[in-house]
Amino acid sequence: MDKNLSALKDILAEISDLNNASAVLGWDQQTYMPKRGAESRGQSQGTLDKIAHDKFTAKDVGRLLDALEKETPKWDLDSDEARLVKVTRRRYDKATKVPSAMVAEQAELVSMGNQAWQEARSKSEFSIFEPHLVKLLDWSRRFAELFKPYDHIYDPVLDEYEPNMKTADVKAIFADIRPKQVKLIKAIADARQVDDSVLHQHFPEKAQWDFGVQVITDFGYDWSQGSIDKTTHPFQATLGPGDHRITTRVSEDFFNPYFFGTLHEAGHAMHAQGMSLDLARTPLYNSASLSIGESQSRMWENLVGRSKPFWEHYYPKLQKVFPEQLKNVSMDTFYKAINKVSPSFIRVEADEATYNLHIMLRLEIEIAMLEGSVEVKDLPALWNERFNEYLGITPPDDAKGVLQDVHWSFGLLGYFSTYALGNLVSAQLWEVIQRDIPDIADKVRNAEFAPLLKWLNEKVHKPGAKFEPQEMVQNITGSKINGGPYLRYLETKFSEIYGL
Amino acid sequence: MDKNLSALKDILAEISDLNNASAVLGWDQQTYMPKRGAESRGQSQGTLDKIAHDKFTAKDVGRLLDALEKETPKWDLDSDEARLVKVTRRRYDKATKVPSAMVAEQAELVSMGNQAWQEARSKSEFSIFEPHLVKLLDWSRRFAELFKPYDHIYDPVLDEYEPNMKTADVKAIFADIRPKQVKLIKAIADARQVDDSVLHQHFPEKAQWDFGVQVITDFGYDWSQGSIDKTTHPFQATLGPGDHRITTRVSEDFFNPYFFGTLHEAGHAMHAQGMSLDLARTPLYNSASLSIGESQSRMWENLVGRSKPFWEHYYPKLQKVFPEQLKNVSMDTFYKAINKVSPSFIRVEADEATYNLHIMLRLEIEIAMLEGSVEVKDLPALWNERFNEYLGITPPDDAKGVLQDVHWSFGLLGYFSTYALGNLVSAQLWEVIQRDIPDIADKVRNAEFAPLLKWLNEKVHKPGAKFEPQEMVQNITGSKINGGPYLRYLETKFSEIYGL
Repeated sequence: MDKNLSALKDILAEISDLNNASAVLGWDQQTYMPKRGAESRGQSQGTLDKIAHDKFTAKDVGRLLDALEKETPKWDLDSDEARLVKVTRRRYDKATKVPSAMVAEQAELVSMGNQAWQEARSKSEFSIFEPHLVKLLDWSRRFAELFKPYDHIYDPVLDEYEPNMKTADVKAIFADIRPKQVKLIKAIADARQVDDSVLHQHFPEKAQWDFGVQVITDFGYDWSQGSIDKTTHPFQATLGPGDHRITTRVSEDFFNPYFFGTLHEAGHAMHAQGMSLDLARTPLYNSASLSIGESQSRMWENLVGRSKPFWEHYYPKLQKVFPEQLKNVSMDTFYKAINKVSPSFIRVEADEATYNLHIMLRLEIEIAMLEGSVEVKDLPALWNERFNEYLGITPPDDAKGVLQDVHWSFGLLGYFSTYALGNLVSAQLWEVIQRDIPDIADKVRNAEFAPLLKWLNEKVHKPGAKFEPQEMVQNITGSKINGGPYLRYLETKFSEIYGL
Repeated sequence: MDKNLSALKDILAEISDLNNASAVLGWDQQTYMPKRGAESRGQSQGTLDKIAHDKFTAKDVGRLLDALEKETPKWDLDSDEARLVKVTRRRYDKATKVPSAMVAEQAELVSMGNQAWQEARSKSEFSIFEPHLVKLLDWSRRFAELFKPYDHIYDPVLDEYEPNMKTADVKAIFADIRPKQVKLIKAIADARQVDDSVLHQHFPEKAQWDFGVQVITDFGYDWSQGSIDKTTHPFQATLGPGDHRITTRVSEDFFNPYFFGTLHEAGHAMHAQGMSLDLARTPLYNSASLSIGESQSRMWENLVGRSKPFWEHYYPKLQKVFPEQLKNVSMDTFYKAINKVSPSFIRVEADEATYNLHIMLRLEIEIAMLEGSVEVKDLPALWNERFNEYLGITPPDDAKGVLQDVHWSFGLLGYFSTYALGNLVSAQLWEVIQRDIPDIADKVRNAEFAPLLKWLNEKVHKPGAKFEPQEMVQNITGSKINGGPYLRYLETKFSEIYGL
């Protein structure tokens, strides 16, 4: 192998080992760590992260990249080698541009800001969080300014989660779909409402658990490189190549959280399990972006797991698991219940049709905040006004409004849109899947998921982070990320359910 | 704080963070890691260990120690500061004396040697392991020679686990107790035998689990800084200050493994939970030595958990848990069964009376190997001959003889004697405890363990690794490590049980 490439890979491998160790610590913290282990765990995590950061931003990495960029023409532009150099350069330039003092400053702002946010939310009092948000926002603005020149000040923060995605693109995508989604939701609101009371019965934990585990096993979740545990907030974690776990939660009074949450996290994990091991211990062993990752979780959760063919197979099985609760409930009633559309205040509880509107609201507000066109103190009023415009209801208080999400208190500006983009990408991919596997509905109806997983493996999982998200979606679907397919999907599905 | 001390502590804190992270990785590997995570886990672990080693052996550490040693007189000799400098110096000199090439060489020898040992044991064919043991032994000899001058070539390997303990001391201790233990066992063999068939009934897992958990909770095992999980081989692990977990295993056909194994590991964990947090993130946050650690696990397992007062409290409770199995079994029958003495081939299954003889055999053989007074090829014959001399039985094959233990294949020469020394120390401490807490038997009979745990906390746990093991035992008991108390304990206990 090329000497410089080999030297770079050695450094990246060590950093990847440290990041994997850090992921083990994080997973354990959420699952099995006794509560008095928290302080020491924070210290270990801090030390690992600092060492990894120091190693990555060392001058050696810069010199090797310089040397390799001179050699790059000898590799095919889409080769692992050329892409590794390209992606590492991007990340190196970003990492080295942020002074250590600013990194430390943010850690402090986040630590205090998150505490204030918790208090503010529990008291539903925005003013408690306001001064912290002002500082966090100021930090994000200074962060963005390090990356001048840019087309838009929001570009650098968005770029953290969606490499090379531009604010103008996201705005255009959302501007296109917003009025159509609003119109759809109005139509649904005027139609005969769906009754989802069947989902709010008592479903004993063990039976729920086994049923969900069976479904993700059928999907192809590989237990030899995975596991499932309980946590307050479900997540998927990659602890290293060959180790892609999920966590979940169970509510005995409501069917949805465990079942769809588990499908969602398994979707993330199967994505990770499918990444090419040739990319292991490099930055390419990763999702192309958060939206690409979310397209996988939402596909298994919604396009598969909330579809009619899926339940044609699984509903009779579920009735056997819960005979008392479901024997008198028809498949049609159950299918409509799990797809009920109803504007609600809390994003994480939103249905497929209203979810994106929650995101658009946040994106507009974030952009306005960063541009300075709205002042932090005016956020609650702006939130409530826009919320009513999009969803037809007004939050009763800030806890159910502008204070509901943790992200800003963690300094995560630019993150939200990836959730909505993931929905759009999932539908774009699905249209291609329907072309490539014309009997996909029959396959799902027979619980034959191998062809679907194989397709996703080849197209989306294997390449890891070799391609930028727009590039990957273009390569697979022939178009950039856009809302057309998702809108068609929503309109078809909900017209049938609500008889529009 | 002193500038040099503060600088040294910063480095040691970072190393301690890395070691704690490594402990999390190790714990997870034994408990929850999916099997295909092994390769990546090995890489992460290797990287953490290498970084920690590089940081500790850096010239900075040496310079700070030099400077601090000039200042030491300003601290009391037993202060945390003076002891930290002393212990760090010892470890630094040892760590820097071993060339990196030798460290890497051993890792390779161990990797191949352990594989060969596994095959050799499964086929009971010593010749498969022999050439590897020759190389591992040669490595240990070269390792020992780095520490010339020494009184005995075995001193440096023993010192790895028992700081400053000398081979001559251990030999003298064992020479004193061996004939007496052999005599006791002969007397027991000639007495009426104990029937332990009551222990070999069906004991459902859940009931065993809850009973053992209740007992260690009564002991004072602190769940806010601990947890219990299942593994093939039980162990205790400290993942950081405030995080001291145990693992265990359950056999449904035999009462002993889960119950006494859990008490044993809880003993280790309570030791760790009691270490002073003032010593956190330094090498002093540790057991004084392996024998001191083993004295704690064996005390709770045997001196408490296999004692008559203990079962006077717990046997009626156990009968309620397993009414079918135990309703017609008297307390006396049960107590004798869990204390049955019977020479057996496998060390880890040995009873309190025969256990030490297994260790003495190994120690003599290790010393002879390192001295070169026995050749590796002659080990099986030597083993069987001595085994018969001490325990009156001859192993039927090498798998049940010289090949039974994994230690040598891991390059762990010098480790075994710590097990026997731990037994001796537990009895030495117990004699002092009986003096300091005269009604300790009544306390145990009432399941009041707080005074005992408090005593151990003050004397043994809090100081961590500030004192060398001989120093600590001398401070607490007024004597160095010796076999007198353990022999008295065995003779009293087994004379009653066997009517000698």
